[in-house]
Amino acid sequence: MDKDTALVCIVGAGPAGLVLAHILHQSNISFVILEREQSGELRSRTKAGLIEQRAVAALQPFGLADTITERGGRNGICEFRIDGEVIVCDYGAPSDDGRGHYIYPQQELVGDWADTLVAKGGRIRFGVKVVDVAENETDAEVRAVTVTNGEPVTIRAEAVVACDGAGSMIARAAGFETFEIAHPFRWLAIIAAIAPPSRTVFALHARGFAGQFRRSATSTRYYLEVPVTDTLADWPDERIWAELEQRMAIRDQLPLVRGDLIERDFLDLRVRVREPMQLGRIFLAGDAAHMVTPAGAKGMNMAIQDAIELAAGLCERYGDTANGDRLGNYTASRLPDIWRYQEFSNWLLGILHAGPAGQTDKPDFIQRLRRARLDRMINDPVYARWFGRSYSGS
Amino acid sequence: MDKDTALVCIVGAGPAGLVLAHILHQSNISFVILEREQSGELRSRTKAGLIEQRAVAALQPFGLADTITERGGRNGICEFRIDGEVIVCDYGAPSDDGRGHYIYPQQELVGDWADTLVAKGGRIRFGVKVVDVAENETDAEVRAVTVTNGEPVTIRAEAVVACDGAGSMIARAAGFETFEIAHPFRWLAIIAAIAPPSRTVFALHARGFAGQFRRSATSTRYYLEVPVTDTLADWPDERIWAELEQRMAIRDQLPLVRGDLIERDFLDLRVRVREPMQLGRIFLAGDAAHMVTPAGAKGMNMAIQDAIELAAGLCERYGDTANGDRLGNYTASRLPDIWRYQEFSNWLLGILHAGPAGQTDKPDFIQRLRRARLDRMINDPVYARWFGRSYSGS
Repeated sequence: MDKDTALVCIVGAGPAGLVLAHILHQSNISFVILEREQSGELRSRTKAGLIEQRAVAALQPFGLADTITERGGRNGICEFRIDGEVIVCDYGAPSDDGRGHYIYPQQELVGDWADTLVAKGGRIRFGVKVVDVAENETDAEVRAVTVTNGEPVTIRAEAVVACDGAGSMIARAAGFETFEIAHPFRWLAIIAAIAPPSRTVFALHARGFAGQFRRSATSTRYYLEVPVTDTLADWPDERIWAELEQRMAIRDQLPLVRGDLIERDFLDLRVRVREPMQLGRIFLAGDAAHMVTPAGAKGMNMAIQDAIELAAGLCERYGDTANGDRLGNYTASRLPDIWRYQEFSNWLLGILHAGPAGQTDKPDFIQRLRRARLDRMINDPVYARWFGRSYSGS
Repeated sequence: MDKDTALVCIVGAGPAGLVLAHILHQSNISFVILEREQSGELRSRTKAGLIEQRAVAALQPFGLADTITERGGRNGICEFRIDGEVIVCDYGAPSDDGRGHYIYPQQELVGDWADTLVAKGGRIRFGVKVVDVAENETDAEVRAVTVTNGEPVTIRAEAVVACDGAGSMIARAAGFETFEIAHPFRWLAIIAAIAPPSRTVFALHARGFAGQFRRSATSTRYYLEVPVTDTLADWPDERIWAELEQRMAIRDQLPLVRGDLIERDFLDLRVRVREPMQLGRIFLAGDAAHMVTPAGAKGMNMAIQDAIELAAGLCERYGDTANGDRLGNYTASRLPDIWRYQEFSNWLLGILHAGPAGQTDKPDFIQRLRRARLDRMINDPVYARWFGRSYSGS
């Protein structure tokens, strides 16, 4: 039987787990990360890549921002389309440095952070899947199995941090309370083998939202708002392209360039907050603690902020001061920000989608309201300033 | 048969009709107002009384603001209640003069404007109810009857302006296109014989919205968000007070002072825009053109702006210049502002109410989202600035 110990057991080598581990490592707090995937697989999970200025600033003191600032790009412009018109939103202008988001693919960031952590002697146990967690007065025990052959692995730790994503085994096993709603529609998420657009496009069509995002140098991500009852069989290639063309159409513009559709799946617009974020020795961070809609590109940014705050608490508690105040205040510190981000993401989704549920029988009224919302975002200088700063996180 | 003529026939002596009439009178454009009620009844329609800074500024050149600035009060503070806490919103601070709204009861304003118009020789025909309108190449004919004995009255005019409110007979008779939604709840509107509160109160309770507003020196207006299916029989006095107390409760505060309930009725939260606002010789202004939810206190303010823009167009068209350009552009001039106000009012309703329809089975999540929205309104300085300026119209 494989038995291991550390002060802190981190479950999951995503952004939250790796940022936390780096900071603990710098403070000589012993930890181990358990990661279900194998080392080489980390860079293959395609994920979001818009990073807030605030997150970059928070990573800088720990040397974790260099990879973003040196190798990432910047994005401060997005494009809305409505009623056949293009409305360009320069949301970066009012942000602190006037440049909007940093862009760097999450899977590359995670890969970089994992590589540097391992190079510095930080411990990541790849291919280990957690099955349960239990705690007692003196410590907690995380029970896991190796993915390759199911051999049991047990970790004893003073604190366990669940950074294991939206499907968090730890959060469910430990019985955290969950606050959740499911929006009454979902997104068909498509990847096409087409060179990406120069700008993110949000098309606000009366038939529903369509979005177009850069995914890599050779692939483009599309989203289509669809009824929750649809299945993949309802969406053959031809229908996807026809719908994208209709929703994204601009007057006097050529139709979309078509290409192979290399992935398609549904994205549930389920949003969730678990609170409190601590029960005894068990802490939640990142998607394990909260899920936002992808509309605001806030998920990874929230994970980074969780990890930095939790790391500060753990360092004070398990470092020389042995002071548990900040750690005990983790939930209270993070929740106001989390609900603010949740609200921002839901608000943005409300711009993208066709308005209040149950009113879809009144597309003309709703479409005009959306146009007025967009008008406010673009033309009301105070509101545009709020949006630009909130979206780019400055 | 009573036959009358004027260049402009104005139907309705509310804010839109009276502002329009005053400006036409000052430019020597002949007009007649047809008003269904009798002269003495104008001041008895209890109506809203929050007037934007922008509306007051627009009335000033015509001498129509004096009654507001000299005799009205100011209000720049409102109170939100949520989770038993009081959150004071100083929305007046970021407005142009730092003082928020003007307050002056609409029925008094209308009474004052009617009295001064008549004193200056302007024509208001009281007790005349319009039944139809028709137009031909040279003019339009408004057909009406006297309320007291049903005698027919006919007005021939070059232009007809419907200022006859949400139930506009003219708008329906002339076949204007209507864009409309009904929110999936309504407000039980109550008047109690109790001295009014010092501040407007918006209570954001998980059970639904409750509001408390000054109505007169001796009466208070309350609102309760209720299901559309409720009837007045569902709301006896005791239940109204119990519900108000529960929704408006503040920790460690005495219960509400109770008093006689002197009026109760349901307010449909139906919102509507008619566009275009002109068909041939027939124009719409004020509630005849658009209805907003009462949440934003924008109705009278929109009516005033409609009237001022339309008056400018009519004065150019029927004055010495005989130029119809501005009049022909009336719809295009007004619609962007109208949709912006519509959007503001719907947004504010979305703060007051329990969130997206169909999610009322998740009160905890929704209540936390509302709290985050309120947090943004109060604590995000840029957002608070936007809200304060938008609400007070500066």
